[in-house]
Amino acid sequence: MSLSPDEKVEIARKLDASGVSVIEAGSACTGAGERETISRVAQSNPDARVTSFCRGIRSDIDLALDCGVDGVNLVVPASQRHIERKVGTTRGGVVETAVELTEYARDHGLWVEVLGEDGSRADTEFLTELMGAALDAGADRVCYCDTVGYATPERTMEAVSALAELGPTSTHTHDDLGLAVTNALASLAAGADLVHTTVNGIGERAGNVALEEVAIALAEGYGVETVDTTALYDLARTVADFTGIPLAPNKAVVGENAFTHESGIHTDGQLKDDAMYEPYPPERVGRDRRLALGKHAGRAGVEAALAEHQIEVTDDELAEVTDRVTDLGDTGKRVTDADVLALAETVQGRERERRVELEDLTAASGNGTPAASVKLRVDGEERTASGTGSGPVDAAVKAVRSALGPRGDATLDSYHVDAITGGTDAVVTVEIEMTRDDRSVSVAASDTDITRASVAAMVEAFDRLLA
Amino acid sequence: MSLSPDEKVEIARKLDASGVSVIEAGSACTGAGERETISRVAQSNPDARVTSFCRGIRSDIDLALDCGVDGVNLVVPASQRHIERKVGTTRGGVVETAVELTEYARDHGLWVEVLGEDGSRADTEFLTELMGAALDAGADRVCYCDTVGYATPERTMEAVSALAELGPTSTHTHDDLGLAVTNALASLAAGADLVHTTVNGIGERAGNVALEEVAIALAEGYGVETVDTTALYDLARTVADFTGIPLAPNKAVVGENAFTHESGIHTDGQLKDDAMYEPYPPERVGRDRRLALGKHAGRAGVEAALAEHQIEVTDDELAEVTDRVTDLGDTGKRVTDADVLALAETVQGRERERRVELEDLTAASGNGTPAASVKLRVDGEERTASGTGSGPVDAAVKAVRSALGPRGDATLDSYHVDAITGGTDAVVTVEIEMTRDDRSVSVAASDTDITRASVAAMVEAFDRLLA
Repeated sequence: MSLSPDEKVEIARKLDASGVSVIEAGSACTGAGERETISRVAQSNPDARVTSFCRGIRSDIDLALDCGVDGVNLVVPASQRHIERKVGTTRGGVVETAVELTEYARDHGLWVEVLGEDGSRADTEFLTELMGAALDAGADRVCYCDTVGYATPERTMEAVSALAELGPTSTHTHDDLGLAVTNALASLAAGADLVHTTVNGIGERAGNVALEEVAIALAEGYGVETVDTTALYDLARTVADFTGIPLAPNKAVVGENAFTHESGIHTDGQLKDDAMYEPYPPERVGRDRRLALGKHAGRAGVEAALAEHQIEVTDDELAEVTDRVTDLGDTGKRVTDADVLALAETVQGRERERRVELEDLTAASGNGTPAASVKLRVDGEERTASGTGSGPVDAAVKAVRSALGPRGDATLDSYHVDAITGGTDAVVTVEIEMTRDDRSVSVAASDTDITRASVAAMVEAFDRLLA
Repeated sequence: MSLSPDEKVEIARKLDASGVSVIEAGSACTGAGERETISRVAQSNPDARVTSFCRGIRSDIDLALDCGVDGVNLVVPASQRHIERKVGTTRGGVVETAVELTEYARDHGLWVEVLGEDGSRADTEFLTELMGAALDAGADRVCYCDTVGYATPERTMEAVSALAELGPTSTHTHDDLGLAVTNALASLAAGADLVHTTVNGIGERAGNVALEEVAIALAEGYGVETVDTTALYDLARTVADFTGIPLAPNKAVVGENAFTHESGIHTDGQLKDDAMYEPYPPERVGRDRRLALGKHAGRAGVEAALAEHQIEVTDDELAEVTDRVTDLGDTGKRVTDADVLALAETVQGRERERRVELEDLTAASGNGTPAASVKLRVDGEERTASGTGSGPVDAAVKAVRSALGPRGDATLDSYHVDAITGGTDAVVTVEIEMTRDDRSVSVAASDTDITRASVAAMVEAFDRLLA
């Protein structure tokens, strides 16, 4: 994962606004580009302390100083494996380096946090000797590092308790065993008072503990406020967009479905009482609740979806539409607004009067400018139009809008295609949401051809919005 | 999320092979499709007990019996909010229902687990009264349910300790506060002996606790074996493919990057000692280690990547290639094999002799059969070919293979496009891996046109594989 300088500065700005206390802006030793970025974060003058990660090498501290940071996160090996086999030194050598570099950094006006790498696999006696020496040399704080995500909460409590007796202690946990949050909380219970986190839990391998999970667990579970939790969703979306590292829909706090209710039991409960199936309201993390329909749909949820499109149904009709929604969900399909409206028409025996139909589509791309043409039947009248775009999908979508003329004036709120992994002949599902005036509609269309799927979804959406 | 019957049976087969003790195959009340699926799972005769989720309604139990399951997970409300506002009954009424339905299910030969819904927000005294009554009525076990993912581990321990004194106790945790694993382990520490999990942690909202995380934490952290951990990765991939719910790359245990090492420090350490930056070997969960290159790349990792393509470099050249790899990573680009090979050529002043170049591409799709043509220069000779396919990308890729003739005989190991969310004019990055004889190469290409990006990546891969 790599970020451009502008992106990193923007993320740092948002982190600072949320109220984090320290921003580790990068490793100054990585290269000139990274140093420029760290400098820009430092120059942006945030309320948070800006630091750089440094290996136990004096030149790394010098490079950090060049960036104008407030402090350094100085890492030295703590476990026998890292001391001997990685760095090729001795316990005595590590203590000496830690003391010398801490003094050097302090002499140059830096705030210093000393990290004992692989501390969870270190001998506790040596870990406390090492960290104690760093504190004696003037370090502002030390950090317990579960570098490889190896520790149980019991091991974490033992090590952190020992360190916290010596001075201010941070904790750095990884999720390899799924225990990143467990160990962060165990560390706080044992006396740590600062947690190293990353937005969305990104990081080496299974990642570091997620900022949003620690913050919300502390706020909701223990009444301890750290950052402004209402900033968490925007932070998560920003980092996911900038890094290209997607969030799983079921990611805690910030995943797309974290406040989505699908099953009939849950939707019905939510419609009766907002807190029925939620531990805290979505507004607490800066987002909204969503009701979805699928194979577990119940009458209350289907009725609410139909009401949004001004469709009234009798009790019998509602039962029948609900049955058909669950049948559709049973096939593995996501049920969209367009699906529910079509099912209601069938059940009510209403003839659907299509205002927009696709009669013809051609899209071409290659070396030159991508182009597409469509022939639509709009209110019974044939309309042909062409468009160019950045690719065949974009060209075809522009052709559709052009053919519709003023009727094509709707906003494409979202255009989503799941990651394609099956091969070049995989079926692609395009999901869109469009708004015209104050009506919105969601539509999905699947095809082995992404252009055909996109146009089919768009034509269906326009037809529903113009109805 | 919905699964076809075939998919559900296949997942159940794999779960059973991994050694889980209970398979909750679905809610029989959901519909005919779901019942057919549950029946098929039950008929597949797994070693695991097959159960159906039932609401506290006698007809739900009857429907479950029709499916031929071994047991039921019978849910009754436990919190005041669910008793009063959701179900509209009283504490006494709930106890009566639980007792009556437990007896009914037992009388019909079913194994019975009674779940106290929203138990984490229930009054502990009432929760124990309710669960105690269920056990007295013959329930085989009871379940503590943190239905809305609300509890701290302290609350969990208090409630589970009380229940475990009464009889066999299961635990059901959700990840809304990021505490699903924390609370599952707290439950076990408090006396529970069965954990409700889902593969990949899918489930309502932020999902249930993940099977793979609980299993590996118990195995590696506590030496407690539950399921066969070597089956976990295959299970995760199967469920992700069938459900279409993607895994985040940093998902613990089963995410794409959970055993990937990118930074120079980490790669160098791993090359010295497999356990340097891993808490347990990837084979433990049925997968492999991967070394990746990016802005934190170091010499050891770059040297290893070049060696795989039989490229030897001097120390100075290696330092220069490594610098350029980190510069490329700095731009936010993923660094592929093709990138590293191109950088090595530049640094070593070698003229790249291209064996395959793209001169021309046209792809068209619409109502009819998608078609494409390409003109390639192969070993100096112009070759034109066409292809049809399931979409323009598929057609163009077939045209490329056709133009190459026997040289086109290589396997496309993976074709990946990240989820597209930006809009119809978003830049799309196509990443492929191809193998010919025993050489493999990874290539990425970006374009606003998915067809152009796919063809560019494929031509580059062939050029590298034929070199």
